[in-house]
Amino acid sequence: MTDRAFYENLDAIDPLSPLRDEFHLPPGTIYLDGNSLGIMPLAAPVRAKQVMLQEWGEDLIASWNKADWISLPMRLGNKIAPLIGAGQDEIVVCDSTSLNIYKVLYSAIQIARRRHPARRKIVSEKTNFPTDLYIAQSLCAQFDMSLELVESQEIDAIINDDLAVLLLTHVNYRSGAILDMAQITSLAHAHDALVIWDLCHSAGSVPVDLTTAQADFAVGCTYKFLNGGPGSPAFVWVHPQHVDDIAQPLTGWMGHAAPFAFETDYQPATGIRSYLCGTPSILAMSVLESSLDIFLKAQGYGGMPAIYKKAQTLTSLFIQLVEKECAGYDLSLVSPRDPEKRASQVSLAHPVGAYAMIQALIAQGVVGDYREPGVLRFGFTPLYLRYTDVWDAARQLQSVLQSEAWRSDTFAARQAVT
Amino acid sequence: MTDRAFYENLDAIDPLSPLRDEFHLPPGTIYLDGNSLGIMPLAAPVRAKQVMLQEWGEDLIASWNKADWISLPMRLGNKIAPLIGAGQDEIVVCDSTSLNIYKVLYSAIQIARRRHPARRKIVSEKTNFPTDLYIAQSLCAQFDMSLELVESQEIDAIINDDLAVLLLTHVNYRSGAILDMAQITSLAHAHDALVIWDLCHSAGSVPVDLTTAQADFAVGCTYKFLNGGPGSPAFVWVHPQHVDDIAQPLTGWMGHAAPFAFETDYQPATGIRSYLCGTPSILAMSVLESSLDIFLKAQGYGGMPAIYKKAQTLTSLFIQLVEKECAGYDLSLVSPRDPEKRASQVSLAHPVGAYAMIQALIAQGVVGDYREPGVLRFGFTPLYLRYTDVWDAARQLQSVLQSEAWRSDTFAARQAVT
Repeated sequence: MTDRAFYENLDAIDPLSPLRDEFHLPPGTIYLDGNSLGIMPLAAPVRAKQVMLQEWGEDLIASWNKADWISLPMRLGNKIAPLIGAGQDEIVVCDSTSLNIYKVLYSAIQIARRRHPARRKIVSEKTNFPTDLYIAQSLCAQFDMSLELVESQEIDAIINDDLAVLLLTHVNYRSGAILDMAQITSLAHAHDALVIWDLCHSAGSVPVDLTTAQADFAVGCTYKFLNGGPGSPAFVWVHPQHVDDIAQPLTGWMGHAAPFAFETDYQPATGIRSYLCGTPSILAMSVLESSLDIFLKAQGYGGMPAIYKKAQTLTSLFIQLVEKECAGYDLSLVSPRDPEKRASQVSLAHPVGAYAMIQALIAQGVVGDYREPGVLRFGFTPLYLRYTDVWDAARQLQSVLQSEAWRSDTFAARQAVT
Repeated sequence: MTDRAFYENLDAIDPLSPLRDEFHLPPGTIYLDGNSLGIMPLAAPVRAKQVMLQEWGEDLIASWNKADWISLPMRLGNKIAPLIGAGQDEIVVCDSTSLNIYKVLYSAIQIARRRHPARRKIVSEKTNFPTDLYIAQSLCAQFDMSLELVESQEIDAIINDDLAVLLLTHVNYRSGAILDMAQITSLAHAHDALVIWDLCHSAGSVPVDLTTAQADFAVGCTYKFLNGGPGSPAFVWVHPQHVDDIAQPLTGWMGHAAPFAFETDYQPATGIRSYLCGTPSILAMSVLESSLDIFLKAQGYGGMPAIYKKAQTLTSLFIQLVEKECAGYDLSLVSPRDPEKRASQVSLAHPVGAYAMIQALIAQGVVGDYREPGVLRFGFTPLYLRYTDVWDAARQLQSVLQSEAWRSDTFAARQAVT
């Protein structure tokens, strides 16, 4: 594994390699940021054009029936379901992750209070993605609950008979560490607490089985590993035992049992449809569908287990190369070393240079990103990355470090979005 | 006005006629449904292609800075502002109308309770668009408020010192009737109540002046008269005196003062930016921008006053023609007869045939829509409709009625979306 030929050979025998042809790969770029914004499928602009010119442009309002726009939230949900171990008609695609967290955490709090009125504790991780914590803070203030934040290794210990709801992200956005969904959910249930899983960095990246884990609620985004495009809509899943038990609070007309009856009183739809709210962007939903269809095709190549297996190899090789080729530059591994505990991501820390190093790497065509504080983050998306990309990216990182290119003022200047 | 030549002459002298060239007009169709889904601007698919192929496809994550994706919610808000009498940096484009109603009604309830803790009454119209009522019902249940629904002529009488919040839609979706925003807001303020205006059928259709009316909150959609495309994102405006007073509850990371600092505690942004929640669809926002640019261009042709003046003439002529040519078929006028009280819409009622008549008309290329109960609804969008379209549509309606084509079983069968 110390020369490029080793990686070329891995590419030659990679069973997933045909799926790379489904994507538009910008020339001269090694894109290690698919955990922030996935690469565009070739089918996506074709679908966008069809929606624009035919469905909107020609058929206009008739497309709600003719092009079946009205079914998009459920149809897309059903395409995500097999990726995360959900049943059919248990997921809707709609709104943003933040909004869907609001819906499910609100519902979870109501159920928890009914079961155990004295319990006030909601627990999350200190390093959870901030939007999850912000929404939790809003709902805690509304319902006189308290939000307790712990480190990942403290989660088990905090689960006791005071716990109302556990709000966790399955794969940490900063480190790529995977939490044990089945074990934690089971422990929380033993104390009659509810668990919400944020799958933003899991869906399309690591195998997830919500049904077997008996999770209570799940949400996730579609623009990272699901390649749905910038700001593509999110998804929400609710365990069938809860879905008709509690009405979520964002009661827009699309979640009504009969939206086109224009009734004065809100009557929630049966099932997950009641988690819909307002009118969704048809264009954004349609483009996402063309991305999800690649995952259907991927089932013929081994599906999520094969995708994750390749991710583990890609990330393991990258770690080994960095630790060998970039030794002595003060980089340290943030992600778990154990591949079973690591998602499709390698995060490295540097005491002072992380931001500038990422900018210098981007200037050389290797796109990773920076995350506060001091983390160089690299996403590895098996659908379109080659083993040789791992080799080339590590070599470029070495060159940035060796040349000290990152110390230039150019790379220190912060941009609006980091 | 009893022959087509009269209408041809009006078209010939119409100062807005050049703006028609900005739209993709499906051949053989007279589209009177722009109050449900506006027609596609020709610039929209060009912009969509650019976002797909260049910004997402080539530049990927760099586009947040390079293509200034991050500024879209505020930039688009500033393009809507002059259409509704809002100031710069007072509007954000985001989420759906339903979600934005949730945000502003939540905020309004908090302010009202602080001012007058004993007030429990929220008032809306019985015939308000259902999603407004559904959201109000959810928040009333949460905050122990009561929702009282009245007819439009009862609004003034219900405004008293018990009133906390008035939630009204400026233009009624069913009738096209306009409420007097300045008068009602002033009356409510005299009793220290707050007023939320839903501008879904107003923005881009009738002149609105939120600042002069001293409204408290406003929301609206962009896919009707603003032609933003199916399910394009909504907007929200909050009076500067309230915007930093109360934090809205949907506290996603995009509304944080420093979203990319990834702080653990929520700290709302200053100003209207705090009404943002999750990551928006960049594709949907970008396409909408190409539509809003037509309204900027329309300022050179007289802007909203000229647009509304033409709408009044179009709707007045349609009413006159229908009452003359379609007399004796049991149609009655639902919309106000006074053009000053009527927006860009004509609604007609029929005791039994409204749904089938609309279907029969659509089959003949005249697209209106049906609204429960028993209403034929016709939207008149001055940017792309001609006076001859009014003549031709009325003649087609007459032909449907005269031939009794609408009595065929084909037209009685209900579709999923009506």
